Amino acid sequence: MQGDYRLHDIGDFELEEGGTIPGLQLAYATYGELSPDKDNAILIPTWFSGTHQTWEQAYIGAGRALDPERWFIVVVNQIGNGLSTSPHNSDGPVAMAGFPHVRIGDDVRAQEQLLRELFGIERLALVVGGSMGAQQTYEWMVRFPNKVLRAAPIAGTAQNTPHDFLFTQTLMDAITSDPGWKGGEYSSHEEVAEGLRRHAGIWSVVGFSTEFWKTEFWRGIEIEDTKFSSMEDFQINFMEAVFGAMDPNALLTMAWKWQRGDVARNTGGDLQAALGRVTAKTFVMPIDEDMFFPPRDCAAEQAMLPGSELRALHSVAGHLGLFGFEQSYLAEVDEHLSDLLAMAV
Amino acid sequence: MQGDYRLHDIGDFELEEGGTIPGLQLAYATYGELSPDKDNAILIPTWFSGTHQTWEQAYIGAGRALDPERWFIVVVNQIGNGLSTSPHNSDGPVAMAGFPHVRIGDDVRAQEQLLRELFGIERLALVVGGSMGAQQTYEWMVRFPNKVLRAAPIAGTAQNTPHDFLFTQTLMDAITSDPGWKGGEYSSHEEVAEGLRRHAGIWSVVGFSTEFWKTEFWRGIEIEDTKFSSMEDFQINFMEAVFGAMDPNALLTMAWKWQRGDVARNTGGDLQAALGRVTAKTFVMPIDEDMFFPPRDCAAEQAMLPGSELRALHSVAGHLGLFGFEQSYLAEVDEHLSDLLAMAV
Repeated sequence: MQGDYRLHDIGDFELEEGGTIPGLQLAYATYGELSPDKDNAILIPTWFSGTHQTWEQAYIGAGRALDPERWFIVVVNQIGNGLSTSPHNSDGPVAMAGFPHVRIGDDVRAQEQLLRELFGIERLALVVGGSMGAQQTYEWMVRFPNKVLRAAPIAGTAQNTPHDFLFTQTLMDAITSDPGWKGGEYSSHEEVAEGLRRHAGIWSVVGFSTEFWKTEFWRGIEIEDTKFSSMEDFQINFMEAVFGAMDPNALLTMAWKWQRGDVARNTGGDLQAALGRVTAKTFVMPIDEDMFFPPRDCAAEQAMLPGSELRALHSVAGHLGLFGFEQSYLAEVDEHLSDLLAMAV
Repeated sequence: MQGDYRLHDIGDFELEEGGTIPGLQLAYATYGELSPDKDNAILIPTWFSGTHQTWEQAYIGAGRALDPERWFIVVVNQIGNGLSTSPHNSDGPVAMAGFPHVRIGDDVRAQEQLLRELFGIERLALVVGGSMGAQQTYEWMVRFPNKVLRAAPIAGTAQNTPHDFLFTQTLMDAITSDPGWKGGEYSSHEEVAEGLRRHAGIWSVVGFSTEFWKTEFWRGIEIEDTKFSSMEDFQINFMEAVFGAMDPNALLTMAWKWQRGDVARNTGGDLQAALGRVTAKTFVMPIDEDMFFPPRDCAAEQAMLPGSELRALHSVAGHLGLFGFEQSYLAEVDEHLSDLLAMAV
């Protein structure tokens, strides 16, 4: 269920890890109008398993911080997310198991090209993204410091942590251990249903918080007028339904990329030097109950970022609070983004 | 590699969940001498995947709080842990896939019988256990309040949380999804090597803390004079080696039991009433970096325990700090247990 989006072909695209994606297509959606001076552009890169849709539904709207009446907002779906070029929508040698490894830096370079080619945008008023979107936001800040005036990485890090690497590995193992995955050459994602179910199960444990489950937070979640009657009901009809509809190879492409997010690749491994390049006014926004991008890890990077502020968000839902279940959380995001957008740069 | 232990046959044992284990054998080890008045007995039940061995090596010793020169210490291996009666060491209808469901309450009843029959012990100076050992400790406190003078549940809860249930489910799924498990009828645990490897992988993510990995805590861990050169080395040669040597059905028996630990079964579902029964002097001892028995959950139960104290432990290793990697952690445990044992009751 994806809202309106367009595809932009940015041509044959060479990847940092080697190999080329022929005719790379980026799926993007825009909201609002670009000003004549092209000074009101906001870029939003997407998170693991996400698309522009969640941003459209939960974060963008009239009267909100991300107000299309004031800003020209471009949400670009990350490479491999199922809408942009991905293993299952590719032909030839890059189809399915042949899809090459993609890095966060590849996404950011492709996005920069898209913004220039389509809209002539040379400078962004704001880059904001959550989770893997935060990884891309950090990469933008370090790689193109002169193009990013403000930045808000939410619930993500500039350099992926070892714990995150291992967590992501369990997600990948859940999928690749399913005999139906067939080394990436399944004929339908339904052949990998069991692997996707286990993948959803691990998300339930690490993606939410202990308090999410203890307080039965899920009782307040309503999907198409339906509420959930038990933890098991929520697990099956929300988590397994959401993640079970996804493409296994797309998830694996994104997971591999997530594991290796690291802005220090731009500075020979020196994280301090990489973050020292940043000129954007930055709000680092961890979620307090996040179990795998914990505030501690985000704060350590914020301390290395010149002129930045730590603006922690509260969500009992933990990392998956990013879905925007709580009005209080969304109000906090709006408040911080409004503050940031009001700052002179 | 298990130190000396003995087996005690407590006869045919009826289980709370239905069914009987014929000739249930409990593997136990003792340290020290029982006093003529039988007033110096300490019981230690074991945790998931653990045996008496870790307690012997890390927690019991001359000059320690658990000093065999002062106390008579009995460590009883939980049912299904591989040393006590378990699926793979059973014959007939309870062998392998035929092994019945065992509950925490079954262990506690069997332990009570063992202590009476073998030693005539009617009162315990202390019950102390970690993780599933804490679950058993709580069950002792509620079920036999007059027999437990002091109690120290470490890194565990009286009523298992929903988050813990889901976490344990991912551990079980990792094993049962391995085609080599064959519904529990494998002929060697090596046929389930891949499932055990995934099981170890999930333990690495949730069992340790984010800070354990970030600080490369594993560099300080030495096993038989060998150190680990990388995260991957530690993952393979510690975590996968430790968990890969275990019996899959034993792990599943313990996991099922863990998921359902709940002292409120003694009081018609009323946790407050169950904990209100307790007369033991109790120190509730969560580990500060524990990701699945977090201090918050332990403190909530401590608040319901008459005359108890919250004594939090610090371990960067998180829940698996229970292994006793850190001298500072062990010193804290000793200090609290010494305080507790010095209290008049």
